[in-house]
Amino acid sequence: MESQRIPVAVVGASGYTGQELLRLLVAHPSVELVATTSRQEAGRALASVFPRLAGSTAADLAFIAPDIEAIVASGAKAAFLALPHGVASEFAVPLLERGLRLVDLSADYRLRDAVVYREFYQHEHPAPQLLGRAVYGLPEFYREEIAAADLVASPGCYPTSVLVPLVPLLKAGLIEPAGIAVASLSGASGAGKKAEASLLFAEVNESLRAYGAPKHRHLSEIEQELSLAAGERVVISFVPHLMPVTAGIATTIFCGIAGDADAISSRVAEAYREAYDGRPFVRVLGEGAFADTKHVVRTNFVDVGWVVDRRTGRLILSSAEDNLGKGAGSQAIQSFNLMFGLPETAGLLQF
Amino acid sequence: MESQRIPVAVVGASGYTGQELLRLLVAHPSVELVATTSRQEAGRALASVFPRLAGSTAADLAFIAPDIEAIVASGAKAAFLALPHGVASEFAVPLLERGLRLVDLSADYRLRDAVVYREFYQHEHPAPQLLGRAVYGLPEFYREEIAAADLVASPGCYPTSVLVPLVPLLKAGLIEPAGIAVASLSGASGAGKKAEASLLFAEVNESLRAYGAPKHRHLSEIEQELSLAAGERVVISFVPHLMPVTAGIATTIFCGIAGDADAISSRVAEAYREAYDGRPFVRVLGEGAFADTKHVVRTNFVDVGWVVDRRTGRLILSSAEDNLGKGAGSQAIQSFNLMFGLPETAGLLQF
Amino acid sequence: MESQRIPVAVVGASGYTGQELLRLLVAHPSVELVATTSRQEAGRALASVFPRLAGSTAADLAFIAPDIEAIVASGAKAAFLALPHGVASEFAVPLLERGLRLVDLSADYRLRDAVVYREFYQHEHPAPQLLGRAVYGLPEFYREEIAAADLVASPGCYPTSVLVPLVPLLKAGLIEPAGIAVASLSGASGAGKKAEASLLFAEVNESLRAYGAPKHRHLSEIEQELSLAAGERVVISFVPHLMPVTAGIATTIFCGIAGDADAISSRVAEAYREAYDGRPFVRVLGEGAFADTKHVVRTNFVDVGWVVDRRTGRLILSSAEDNLGKGAGSQAIQSFNLMFGLPETAGLLQF
Amino acid sequence: MESQRIPVAVVGASGYTGQELLRLLVAHPSVELVATTSRQEAGRALASVFPRLAGSTAADLAFIAPDIEAIVASGAKAAFLALPHGVASEFAVPLLERGLRLVDLSADYRLRDAVVYREFYQHEHPAPQLLGRAVYGLPEFYREEIAAADLVASPGCYPTSVLVPLVPLLKAGLIEPAGIAVASLSGASGAGKKAEASLLFAEVNESLRAYGAPKHRHLSEIEQELSLAAGERVVISFVPHLMPVTAGIATTIFCGIAGDADAISSRVAEAYREAYDGRPFVRVLGEGAFADTKHVVRTNFVDVGWVVDRRTGRLILSSAEDNLGKGAGSQAIQSFNLMFGLPETAGLLQF
Repeated sequence: MESQRIPVAVVGASGYTGQELLRLLVAHPSVELVATTSRQEAGRALASVFPRLAGSTAADLAFIAPDIEAIVASGAKAAFLALPHGVASEFAVPLLERGLRLVDLSADYRLRDAVVYREFYQHEHPAPQLLGRAVYGLPEFYREEIAAADLVASPGCYPTSVLVPLVPLLKAGLIEPAGIAVASLSGASGAGKKAEASLLFAEVNESLRAYGAPKHRHLSEIEQELSLAAGERVVISFVPHLMPVTAGIATTIFCGIAGDADAISSRVAEAYREAYDGRPFVRVLGEGAFADTKHVVRTNFVDVGWVVDRRTGRLILSSAEDNLGKGAGSQAIQSFNLMFGLPETAGLLQF
Repeated sequence: MESQRIPVAVVGASGYTGQELLRLLVAHPSVELVATTSRQEAGRALASVFPRLAGSTAADLAFIAPDIEAIVASGAKAAFLALPHGVASEFAVPLLERGLRLVDLSADYRLRDAVVYREFYQHEHPAPQLLGRAVYGLPEFYREEIAAADLVASPGCYPTSVLVPLVPLLKAGLIEPAGIAVASLSGASGAGKKAEASLLFAEVNESLRAYGAPKHRHLSEIEQELSLAAGERVVISFVPHLMPVTAGIATTIFCGIAGDADAISSRVAEAYREAYDGRPFVRVLGEGAFADTKHVVRTNFVDVGWVVDRRTGRLILSSAEDNLGKGAGSQAIQSFNLMFGLPETAGLLQF
Repeated sequence: MESQRIPVAVVGASGYTGQELLRLLVAHPSVELVATTSRQEAGRALASVFPRLAGSTAADLAFIAPDIEAIVASGAKAAFLALPHGVASEFAVPLLERGLRLVDLSADYRLRDAVVYREFYQHEHPAPQLLGRAVYGLPEFYREEIAAADLVASPGCYPTSVLVPLVPLLKAGLIEPAGIAVASLSGASGAGKKAEASLLFAEVNESLRAYGAPKHRHLSEIEQELSLAAGERVVISFVPHLMPVTAGIATTIFCGIAGDADAISSRVAEAYREAYDGRPFVRVLGEGAFADTKHVVRTNFVDVGWVVDRRTGRLILSSAEDNLGKGAGSQAIQSFNLMFGLPETAGLLQF
Repeated sequence: MESQRIPVAVVGASGYTGQELLRLLVAHPSVELVATTSRQEAGRALASVFPRLAGSTAADLAFIAPDIEAIVASGAKAAFLALPHGVASEFAVPLLERGLRLVDLSADYRLRDAVVYREFYQHEHPAPQLLGRAVYGLPEFYREEIAAADLVASPGCYPTSVLVPLVPLLKAGLIEPAGIAVASLSGASGAGKKAEASLLFAEVNESLRAYGAPKHRHLSEIEQELSLAAGERVVISFVPHLMPVTAGIATTIFCGIAGDADAISSRVAEAYREAYDGRPFVRVLGEGAFADTKHVVRTNFVDVGWVVDRRTGRLILSSAEDNLGKGAGSQAIQSFNLMFGLPETAGLLQF
């Protein structure tokens, strides 16, 4: 029934993450999209900006300029913030005050420590008073906290692909916290819808290159969560790469086996079972399996596999997710579902 | 002048490596292609099998069935063997006896130790008596030996991309021989021209997946050469991936800095200068640069860059090459050039 | 409620069309998938063959060998036949006799005339007695007939993209029936999941080529339906092309304007309004718009735009659809929905 | 010998066409690159802007700002102008006065009629006095005129792919001049190196769309040359499309057979033989063959095939070229070769 739908706003909806949020929200059974904002697209209908959404119930909804009063006036009870870091806080603070519950997809509230924020984002944290209030939006680890939160900081695209395979193993003490090395590859949508020559088709196509190492911003939240899992400070090497696909993140992780390598594989399987049984969006592929981005794009799934490298005493983990999905938009909706008491999978079981 | 051209045969020319060899040889200023063999294409003209070669001087040359006498009768003084491992030896042994000088692109003569061959290739070495005679065809490390050889074992596609960045640093003692981890990504042509459903466009496109870890066959030659460079046994973790490009290999290497990290970058630069000054096909990009496959495909160049990860005490190396070029066909021609006293760059300076 | 779900079988489910059917059926609100057949995958679980479907309710359903009794025993009331032409009839005839209602995605029942079938498919029609009973499954033109049918012949992938833009204009007499020329481009999945070297990634990537002209099999059903619309025999030129995308068909049509060109654009708009108002899956983009495959892939939409070429007296039409979606799987489900009195859009409103 | 090399400048070298010119010129046996200009890259070395050119003899040549005196001072005897239309004339006029011979890759001198220029380019022709002096740079039709010219107007990318298959047939009277319809598809580099969101990888990838019809600018030169060939005014329908490849143009042409269709195929073959025997860069594939872009990219070849559509009385032509090669850079060098008495194929026989 329409009357039971939750009125929702998307703030900053003209980029790729916003587009993915809209794509899912217009088909979400318990959501009514009441406002979408975009400075540059204000006044245009949703389907005019995103032809893919023509034919949806929200096709004629017009973008509005980003404005607190207008968002509040839309009747939205929840808002997704798909804004650049720093800018998100300008909306988060007043919208929280006005009683909306927020899922922020920027980096503004992911870090518990404003000093780390400044180190990685090169400016003072815009609203440090909210850091204690925000919950890191990885539902597989913080389901209850998210359900109770009014401000969820949805993770970055790379962190989810790194944390889902690593956290259970660190918690279980199966791998060495030191010496972890991560190679991640992201599709081009991960760079955003920016008109830059380096992101043109003719530049990205038939090309593979690393970038951003050794200190990509996502390292900050990755190491925060790994450290919490390990119970000690964890520092890792992380190398992101740009790959010629529209969407998808593949992550390969090298880590040292802690203790006896003999039964490591069954212990890994057991740790994942404990962590992810009953978690509908983590698919544990098992030993010898490598996750493939093509099986997860346009879904909220993250796939995880592993192999044991006995020659070097290492465990090699492999994960895949959609950078716009489990890495951004659909994961944010998963948190939203929990916040509003909906089934965790509502609107997300697409294949 | 035609009379000075060296008559050359390509044995097993119908796959992607053979195609790349032919593409380069028909335009090589000192080569006359006198025979190309293919069991399945025998009788067909070169340009009929490879429409790209229409318009070349060898367009009308007909493929012949692979036969020692026919190859010898063609007058070839040199032959490139682009055959599966195990099969290559069936041609290498008799052709060497008949006085041809060979560049073998299979794995048959890359390893010095027939035991390691059996471990990685799961069958007895077909001609162990030749192992001491063959030279590993990485001209940047074995230029003189190649020049004098009559049997050059051209490296596998991944090894070149791993060895070029690592060998000088191991020789110089700048990195720890233990704990090296390598993530490599190869374009789809690296899997060969095999009619397998898993290699169809609709399977590889928009997909990224690891495979083959932890014991890909190329590990055997990689570790052989790294061990020689380090002067001790080196064992590494190596994870190849299939990426949706036609050609190109990108390799990212994590390795521990040996000793003081302070001046490591300038010492790396110096080690590369010593190793690669005067080596026309290695382009050292410098610190902070990441190699991009799009700048090397269809060339014989291999690009190398690095960053220092001070937080973890690691050096992160990045290389790019064409898997069919410096990783196979053009590197084989580079060896051929040296074997016949031609300029090392003959026929290879394309951009 | 589960009890109200319609039990459905998919016969021949291991190809790309079968995969797309399964992807949609496992999420269809009124369907219970009770059987999927595949000779080569018999015994394997759905999610094992199609990792993308892991996490769905049917993930553990095992493929069975194609067998009439087994399909009937599954309790299926409807079956989708995703089989090669000729083979489909072997299942259609007995399954109809056993009371199942069928959507056949092969070419077996698309043509009204067995002589034309033989001309284009080079063998006798396997069950001509059923030709009068089958309905051509293009719901935009045959909605009522489909609702009453027990055998629906779902159109080929190209025909839908040609017929949707042309039929209303021919019916309205706005274009000349003679002289129509069509250039269509299809993604690689349109060629099926066949292990052929010509369909390898490295062959299709960075490649564009026509094929199949001048007498592609789909011409037969295209001309049948165009002739019915025009009320006279229509013969067209049709050139399919293979393009390097996984899915999608883009079609560009050149046709002569009948009569006065002055008001042609508004008359075209009016003809499309009459034909497609209330048809949820045709999105008329309007004059000056060109349909883009990226807005329709993984949906059941077909987009249509046009421009008037006054210099030559021609109308140029443009359409886009997903070859596996509106061109095959989702369109078959649209017919199924109508056959079973479900909302036409059930399970199909994805964006 | 260096002393015999012709000193050459490239004006406006930072785009894709400029890059392709440089790529070929640095390896051209009779060229010495003495100046390359770019307003935005002035001061930077060639290899810094185009990493692919590192290792070439001109790697360290610094871009200079576009300036007539500087270009003259470089000693260049020839210049390639890779500038936007309108801008090219600002350089063409003074450089001609200073005695340089020019190959202009802009549209400024392709049309014989300044009125048509204004119609298609929406501004007055900047230097109509030069129109009679310029030669249309399609060497297959104007070899002698090009050899004698000091101003060659190199064709647009689409026109070459349309004119090469059509001109000989119109000249021979084998096809009807009326009713020609052309569908062309171009890779993304054809849109230039412009930082526009619509050209981002994530927009072009997995996408196919028409654009620019019915009156793309290239129509003007296409119809000029077709009319000259036919001896009467020829007006065609032309629909360009953007396809997800980096480079390549595939063109499919529908045209009516003039007169008897019976022997049309052999008459087409004969017309092509007459036109293209001794023309090294046109590869006539024959009846039943469809040209594939992957066989021509990074070459100066244009491939041509055809089929006879007896059902409609049409001939369907198919051509493929590289939009940056035969469609721009390498074709310009072909003209340059003729202008300077070099072998027509100098520096261009790559495969």
